[in-house]
Amino acid sequence: MSRYTYLKEQVFEANMEIPKENLAIVTFGNVSGIDRQEGVVAIKPSGVPYNRLKVEDIVIVDLDNVVIEGSMRPSSDTRTHTLLYKNFPSIGGVCHTHSTYAVAWAQAQKPIPNLGTTHADHLVQAVPVTEVMTDEAILRDYELETGYQILETFTRNALSPEEVEMVLVACHGPFTWGKDPAKAIYNSVVLEEIAKMAFLTLQINASAETIKQTLIDKHYFRKHGKDAYYGQGC
Amino acid sequence: MSRYTYLKEQVFEANMEIPKENLAIVTFGNVSGIDRQEGVVAIKPSGVPYNRLKVEDIVIVDLDNVVIEGSMRPSSDTRTHTLLYKNFPSIGGVCHTHSTYAVAWAQAQKPIPNLGTTHADHLVQAVPVTEVMTDEAILRDYELETGYQILETFTRNALSPEEVEMVLVACHGPFTWGKDPAKAIYNSVVLEEIAKMAFLTLQINASAETIKQTLIDKHYFRKHGKDAYYGQGC
Amino acid sequence: MSRYTYLKEQVFEANMEIPKENLAIVTFGNVSGIDRQEGVVAIKPSGVPYNRLKVEDIVIVDLDNVVIEGSMRPSSDTRTHTLLYKNFPSIGGVCHTHSTYAVAWAQAQKPIPNLGTTHADHLVQAVPVTEVMTDEAILRDYELETGYQILETFTRNALSPEEVEMVLVACHGPFTWGKDPAKAIYNSVVLEEIAKMAFLTLQINASAETIKQTLIDKHYFRKHGKDAYYGQGC
Amino acid sequence: MSRYTYLKEQVFEANMEIPKENLAIVTFGNVSGIDRQEGVVAIKPSGVPYNRLKVEDIVIVDLDNVVIEGSMRPSSDTRTHTLLYKNFPSIGGVCHTHSTYAVAWAQAQKPIPNLGTTHADHLVQAVPVTEVMTDEAILRDYELETGYQILETFTRNALSPEEVEMVLVACHGPFTWGKDPAKAIYNSVVLEEIAKMAFLTLQINASAETIKQTLIDKHYFRKHGKDAYYGQGC
Repeated sequence: MSRYTYLKEQVFEANMEIPKENLAIVTFGNVSGIDRQEGVVAIKPSGVPYNRLKVEDIVIVDLDNVVIEGSMRPSSDTRTHTLLYKNFPSIGGVCHTHSTYAVAWAQAQKPIPNLGTTHADHLVQAVPVTEVMTDEAILRDYELETGYQILETFTRNALSPEEVEMVLVACHGPFTWGKDPAKAIYNSVVLEEIAKMAFLTLQINASAETIKQTLIDKHYFRKHGKDAYYGQGC
Repeated sequence: MSRYTYLKEQVFEANMEIPKENLAIVTFGNVSGIDRQEGVVAIKPSGVPYNRLKVEDIVIVDLDNVVIEGSMRPSSDTRTHTLLYKNFPSIGGVCHTHSTYAVAWAQAQKPIPNLGTTHADHLVQAVPVTEVMTDEAILRDYELETGYQILETFTRNALSPEEVEMVLVACHGPFTWGKDPAKAIYNSVVLEEIAKMAFLTLQINASAETIKQTLIDKHYFRKHGKDAYYGQGC
Repeated sequence: MSRYTYLKEQVFEANMEIPKENLAIVTFGNVSGIDRQEGVVAIKPSGVPYNRLKVEDIVIVDLDNVVIEGSMRPSSDTRTHTLLYKNFPSIGGVCHTHSTYAVAWAQAQKPIPNLGTTHADHLVQAVPVTEVMTDEAILRDYELETGYQILETFTRNALSPEEVEMVLVACHGPFTWGKDPAKAIYNSVVLEEIAKMAFLTLQINASAETIKQTLIDKHYFRKHGKDAYYGQGC
Repeated sequence: MSRYTYLKEQVFEANMEIPKENLAIVTFGNVSGIDRQEGVVAIKPSGVPYNRLKVEDIVIVDLDNVVIEGSMRPSSDTRTHTLLYKNFPSIGGVCHTHSTYAVAWAQAQKPIPNLGTTHADHLVQAVPVTEVMTDEAILRDYELETGYQILETFTRNALSPEEVEMVLVACHGPFTWGKDPAKAIYNSVVLEEIAKMAFLTLQINASAETIKQTLIDKHYFRKHGKDAYYGQGC
């Protein structure tokens, strides 16, 4: 019996939401979770189809990407996940999908503008998109550099990973995170929906603009912070 | 045993149609129902995922939004619902969703034009869209003001809530209503479909126009009013 | 036991394909079938939701629209169906849906051009669209006139109902037919798919044109006529 | 008991993925597999609906399209499959679908540009599209000529069938292949997804361009070739 079973189960459950919520086909996508006290990350093994994935397949690595437990190779995106855990100390789960509309925005290299309250309920900002990676970075250590692209985007735009829990990696697709693996995958579900809504909105009205700041703040702060009154307060 | 069980069951069933008909993801959306003799409204609790919602979770409030029965906090949109019940005396149920195409029209701040008989079967008019709320109103009492935006839209356009059982709140999403909670959610299903049909129609033919009044009236009145001959007359 | 049970069962099964194939929401749409020797048509009752429809609900009418058997009111579109049976002597089933993409083309008042082999496998022509009905016709006998609109479209375009088993009624939606109720609903499934494919094709390439006649004929005649070699020849 | 049961089962399973993955409606599409030692190809029978297809219905033909085993007529596309097997000696399975977005690109007669890493994970190139077939070829031996169109496209563009396992036949739809029938259908699933992503990307940003070569190569070669590190290496 693994000492990390509780973490593997959480990460397994969150990964199984990817096919259930149609956030990726075949083997694409991966969710991880961290136990900061133990200093370990649990993550999906690389290239395993969801309909064959089992709890015991989840791989445990340390923050230097060394496999601690598990007979399978961890996700090829592991180094992106661990870099985010090292630099965003408040997060407990990371999710990467190839959900169709979020990927389309990433491929279009456009941030998703905040066009309505479904978006504002989750973040004040546009969903940011990274720069396209330089040739040098691609050839250096691609998955690690993907993480650096995300960090650079947050620094350049003065974004907080607690306030903006999602990003589009240009030409690639979305990463989301949250306090635990369940929140990370929840944010991927929300991101795909707001990506589709924004797409349709601009097809109906190409001059639709970011909604007013008071409305954004109203929706965001009724769900977040000390004055939140949405939900059951737990 | 609650004296409002019959109402809670109706409202529970109507709420469960939201995920079944794909009208909102995660916890979004809510349906309520009113017992006008008792002066109480039953409504979904705030922020509860549909796959965990139970009949007994439905909250009973009075028309001043005071909780009469239930251990959970009612939907954050409760004040919008009760304002509609107070001002639209013929309605028995209200539904709010974040269905994708209806939200896109709301975010585009465009009324949905009456482009065909699927629309005309349900309402003679375009689906109206409210004005964007003023900063003052947003900061005052947002959910109550959302209700006032809807009332103002109906007054300004001289619409009857018996004839037009749906509205788009600008930058936000749809509200629908009807004689009972089942009809309110039925109208949300119909609205999403006509929102998608109108979207596609205008993509195929950007100059498509509102259909002729005789055709609108023919379809509307074969389903509504004393000369209706659609359905089983019950 | 009804003497028309065999026909009611066929028509019931074909109607149940409408929700299963997502060709209409709630109560919309209807399929009928004819027994030409008995001179009777079996059709869905008006306004009954599919999840409550039973074989015994199917209504039997004669070609003058008089109810022969059944306790429910027949579909409000019955007179359109019977007119088609009277004028298209080779057909055995008729289907009317509100499928989303076919309705969008009908609302756009555009025929669906023959842009590829999926279309050409089923018909040589564009899917025709009727004229918009005159005010006089709408006020006269709407459902009967809908049938006349279809007949007029076939006459004007010199179309054969054996070769073109589908039509778009302008501002309304599709009617399809075939040798029996199963073939009628099959054609509605095909029509919705070619409507979606044509929509997407023109979004990708607005100047896409009707494919060459040799290719159309090749695909049509490998499935139809004496030299057909698609399928199992039965 | 057939000596080809193992092959029929593989081909049956792969065919059943077509409806499960929504890659074609009704009877459209077909998957085959080859046993190169036996010199036989197993393929779906022509025009059989998937919900009635059984393992024993799969037809065995030789590379000259002569039926070796089976009581049903093989797919009308058999000659396209066998020509591909004869000219692409490394492939073990071929799949043809009418998946909606891939067909739309084929009807639009446009190659699908490589706009992101989901595409680059599977092929370095754009998904090629054939020329429109000449009248002479259509009238000669259509299905065989469809195969020649594909071969000509690969020759003209100097493509390798090991590196590019998919093609769009102009005005028709996609063919994919791979080392076995399972890989052939896998590639059809992937193609439909990248066809949809590319469609949406260009709707959001009409000037989106092929991604940089270093990024394409990085993604392709982390999944393919001797330095691949995606998956479990088996």
